[in-house]
Amino acid sequence: MTSALATYFARLHTALLEAEAGGEVPELARLSGARDEHLGLALCDLDGRITAEGSDHAFPVQSISKAFAYGAAIDLHGHDYVTSIVDEEPTGEDFGALSLDRVTKKPKNPLVNIGAIRTHAMLGPEQAERTERLRAVLEAAAGRPLELHEETCRRELAGSDRNLALAHMLRAAGSMDEDAEEVVAGYIEGCAVLTTVTDLAVMAATLASGGTNPLTGERVFSRVAARQVLSVMLTCGMYDNAGDWVSDVGLPAKSGVAGGIIASLPSRFGIATYAPQLDQHGNSVRGTLAFERMSEDFSMHLLDGQEAADLDRRAAELTEIGTAI
Amino acid sequence: MTSALATYFARLHTALLEAEAGGEVPELARLSGARDEHLGLALCDLDGRITAEGSDHAFPVQSISKAFAYGAAIDLHGHDYVTSIVDEEPTGEDFGALSLDRVTKKPKNPLVNIGAIRTHAMLGPEQAERTERLRAVLEAAAGRPLELHEETCRRELAGSDRNLALAHMLRAAGSMDEDAEEVVAGYIEGCAVLTTVTDLAVMAATLASGGTNPLTGERVFSRVAARQVLSVMLTCGMYDNAGDWVSDVGLPAKSGVAGGIIASLPSRFGIATYAPQLDQHGNSVRGTLAFERMSEDFSMHLLDGQEAADLDRRAAELTEIGTAI
Amino acid sequence: MTSALATYFARLHTALLEAEAGGEVPELARLSGARDEHLGLALCDLDGRITAEGSDHAFPVQSISKAFAYGAAIDLHGHDYVTSIVDEEPTGEDFGALSLDRVTKKPKNPLVNIGAIRTHAMLGPEQAERTERLRAVLEAAAGRPLELHEETCRRELAGSDRNLALAHMLRAAGSMDEDAEEVVAGYIEGCAVLTTVTDLAVMAATLASGGTNPLTGERVFSRVAARQVLSVMLTCGMYDNAGDWVSDVGLPAKSGVAGGIIASLPSRFGIATYAPQLDQHGNSVRGTLAFERMSEDFSMHLLDGQEAADLDRRAAELTEIGTAI
Amino acid sequence: MTSALATYFARLHTALLEAEAGGEVPELARLSGARDEHLGLALCDLDGRITAEGSDHAFPVQSISKAFAYGAAIDLHGHDYVTSIVDEEPTGEDFGALSLDRVTKKPKNPLVNIGAIRTHAMLGPEQAERTERLRAVLEAAAGRPLELHEETCRRELAGSDRNLALAHMLRAAGSMDEDAEEVVAGYIEGCAVLTTVTDLAVMAATLASGGTNPLTGERVFSRVAARQVLSVMLTCGMYDNAGDWVSDVGLPAKSGVAGGIIASLPSRFGIATYAPQLDQHGNSVRGTLAFERMSEDFSMHLLDGQEAADLDRRAAELTEIGTAI
Repeated sequence: MTSALATYFARLHTALLEAEAGGEVPELARLSGARDEHLGLALCDLDGRITAEGSDHAFPVQSISKAFAYGAAIDLHGHDYVTSIVDEEPTGEDFGALSLDRVTKKPKNPLVNIGAIRTHAMLGPEQAERTERLRAVLEAAAGRPLELHEETCRRELAGSDRNLALAHMLRAAGSMDEDAEEVVAGYIEGCAVLTTVTDLAVMAATLASGGTNPLTGERVFSRVAARQVLSVMLTCGMYDNAGDWVSDVGLPAKSGVAGGIIASLPSRFGIATYAPQLDQHGNSVRGTLAFERMSEDFSMHLLDGQEAADLDRRAAELTEIGTAI
Repeated sequence: MTSALATYFARLHTALLEAEAGGEVPELARLSGARDEHLGLALCDLDGRITAEGSDHAFPVQSISKAFAYGAAIDLHGHDYVTSIVDEEPTGEDFGALSLDRVTKKPKNPLVNIGAIRTHAMLGPEQAERTERLRAVLEAAAGRPLELHEETCRRELAGSDRNLALAHMLRAAGSMDEDAEEVVAGYIEGCAVLTTVTDLAVMAATLASGGTNPLTGERVFSRVAARQVLSVMLTCGMYDNAGDWVSDVGLPAKSGVAGGIIASLPSRFGIATYAPQLDQHGNSVRGTLAFERMSEDFSMHLLDGQEAADLDRRAAELTEIGTAI
Repeated sequence: MTSALATYFARLHTALLEAEAGGEVPELARLSGARDEHLGLALCDLDGRITAEGSDHAFPVQSISKAFAYGAAIDLHGHDYVTSIVDEEPTGEDFGALSLDRVTKKPKNPLVNIGAIRTHAMLGPEQAERTERLRAVLEAAAGRPLELHEETCRRELAGSDRNLALAHMLRAAGSMDEDAEEVVAGYIEGCAVLTTVTDLAVMAATLASGGTNPLTGERVFSRVAARQVLSVMLTCGMYDNAGDWVSDVGLPAKSGVAGGIIASLPSRFGIATYAPQLDQHGNSVRGTLAFERMSEDFSMHLLDGQEAADLDRRAAELTEIGTAI
Repeated sequence: MTSALATYFARLHTALLEAEAGGEVPELARLSGARDEHLGLALCDLDGRITAEGSDHAFPVQSISKAFAYGAAIDLHGHDYVTSIVDEEPTGEDFGALSLDRVTKKPKNPLVNIGAIRTHAMLGPEQAERTERLRAVLEAAAGRPLELHEETCRRELAGSDRNLALAHMLRAAGSMDEDAEEVVAGYIEGCAVLTTVTDLAVMAATLASGGTNPLTGERVFSRVAARQVLSVMLTCGMYDNAGDWVSDVGLPAKSGVAGGIIASLPSRFGIATYAPQLDQHGNSVRGTLAFERMSEDFSMHLLDGQEAADLDRRAAELTEIGTAI
């Protein structure tokens, strides 16, 4: 039997595909097979129940991996140590902004590239250990083995001058001792891991649960790490659109340049969307629309002055009253 | 009969007074009677039940008024219009940062001074109307008439060069037509309104409820405005310490330079603290400690992966097991 | 008898008028009568010999007055004092850039607006004294009484928000005690003094001579002040085009928004041009062309590896060989 | 027979050695043998007459090579092309400042590191060709073969993260296609060429003459290139102290981190100093004192309103009247 939520998702999927959303699919995303008509929606609640609709294309996780690398670094070194190296403050700047904070000389947060590169370097003394640890965390959060998209990896390495500049700046500032090229290579590899929208929903649910994968029951992150990951996602996750996102959607979220977005409603569920057309902030256009719609329909906004709705009951209501999605 | 929460508050109050908190009381705050030993705590839930402990000294609301002016502007002009003039993005910069956003030419958000001045100018075509409207909103949120501290007002006007610079910049940028000196005078007057910590708790509860004062039942803000005020408080409320605050406390909050802090747990309650010693970010030292403690004791962190605790039950547990506060 | 130099000037004037120079006459300049076909050239050597061609329209001196106010401040307070308040470093920024130097908290130089406003405030304890002193210095440098263009003054006062912002910032930074509105009013008045291109050539010759007006023999500036004025003109005089100007013309120069430019070849002569169409840097288009041409024709470039030519001899050569100007 | 200028130099040398100059010898300079008591002075006029006093220690030319690489690039590609890639504007920023100009996306000038690296990349399609060309130009300007200090080279390569960051940024910005590591290696090699203070004086004289080495008669630079090199030295040569230097010394100059400074009086002579203690701007302390003194004693300031003195005549006067140096 189809759940009311599944029916809602099916209708939302149709409505979004029909919408003239605009945005561009980056050439890099096409390399791993992104197509204009790709659109996937998935939700995983804390009982491990998954509702999914649309594309199950596997695409590179890209910057979404930054959030999981950050959680892994906290569990490896403790929140205090990590924060002493990489700050947790939002920045009005572009995700690739070049500068360390003028006063603290630290990267502003672990979700801008310079902070993500520095965080990646914390994952182990050697490149192999770092990439293995990150892959292990991503797989534990998704609840299954994940592949690497080798060609995305190669292509990004070939055009990694900006990231190499950032890594050399970290070394020049005395913030990082590890080899710049190795750290960037590992960081890029972590971004090229392939995930489906369902994987991402499970990963988001792992954060929503306080760190335990609701499918496998495995503890992936400590409660502190999960909460901290969601905290930086809330203030820094959506690039220079973070404030708009908090206003309009009201959930901690992280997007990737291949078109994925994850968001978590703590103690309730994780949601993910996949649609490869990006807006000028680098966020998925249809993904953003989907989240705005779902947030409103189910009162998911964390600051809304009322509890988020029961999903099935509310989905049934919405269907019954024939609300146009 | 004393509630378990009241007992908790009394013990927290004692513990905080004993703590060597450090920080400095600004000279301006002394003008309105701030004393080193001042410490007040108050909570107002959505049934209007108030629990308060410590100082009932009335102090200037200061920057906390920015949040309420912003809500008033949204209800007057709509969220879209207000956002077209003043953005809602966090900024890594100082609260008095001078510049408009390089690309949008807008103030970054309504809680930095330049954004707050621009927002104040939206409250009406004339200075008198603007100040009356803001006073009315503050009083409706507090649920009682509020006084102005004339001398704070005079003193701030005499040292208002930075705010005048910001107002003239807004005019020079074509962002504001109103008279610079009048807008600054009105803005300063809104900051000099006297509130007790209990007033602030009720005002915070008004935001937590989605805009309705839980004491008086009066609708002060639309649901959209209340949610939007909390959204910018979450990402921009604690100056350049916003990220740390979200990590450590996890509630939308706003502080004022006279030592007040408000925070709201949506659909649950508003809390306020008053302690005039400030840290280097301009936030109350003991207030911050109080919030970190309460957030942990009652699982108030919005991103914690579990529901916030029932206050009385948890307070009773904490008292019973003799947890050192 | 017409000198060879006068013949050269006449031909240069014709050639420049015919050139499709582009650029825009600002509306403000039209207020004091600027017309598209206005073009004036003048040179005054250290014997007081003047060669002039074209328009003798009197136009506001505008930012060129900044250089003379700076010289006056040095002679009033000494170079060390003035430099302790206003630095002498070039800046890559726009002439209206808002910020004080991040480290020194000083305006970068006396030719950007914030530095010019601060310098103006040094000219006396009261507004009347400041404006009188500046007028006296301008008149002494020009060698004759100068009028004020009242309407330019009024119009600039009405649109002085940017300058008021700068003045309030100086006060807020503790750099200036004088009343912001009075200082800005005096500064604007100094910019609205009317000069002809011949006046400007004499003023430039006064700087070239080490401070003595070659017409009147009056010492206007000490040698130190004159040299220092030329030093900041060289590195900071042409807004964000300073480096190009040094490369292409190689003379210390200052331009004004009404279309005037002065330049000095130390120990030789002062030159001025007037043409009200401005380029995107705010410099006169035809004036810049004239200087590039004259610099090349007479080897005026300070860094050229040879002495500047004798003007009449070289002009005769150029005429004889029929060089197309 | 000792010339009056030689006597002057000997006395200046003694006076400077006795002065408590302060400043620090960087560890890197010690690697090539710099000692606290090192102090060398040399002047080469356009007849090739050399007057020198003090240390003939050979030290790395360091950033002084940037000026010569720039001249070589202009003669190879033309001034217009070079300026289309690297601007010629002063910047208020630190010599290692990371950013390209916000509007033009070009390095601000060829004497800040990012501009120097980009300029070096213009010297040929291959690393070997680039380093050979630069070495050939340095040798032609000095008039003799120059050695490389291999260990300085190795040490700088090992700590070249900042320069690698800059090179990768240039590539990321689409400004440079050459391999980042190769360009940085070649740039560093050019900085490690060993010169004596006499070599530098001859090199400065080569610029003063309009590009011809006064010892060998070889044309090293075109007149345009020599003039352009001096132009950027004037506005950008002394790091963030450029304005002070123009005010106090008034000559185009360039300093190197090993303690050398060159300056040129066009059509007259080149001067160099060597003293390895550096001030906070990275300029030689005793070198700066020497230039301030010589500029004043011989009226060398380009903007002084009088011709520079005849060196021997003025040196004789100064000696005769027993002026304390």
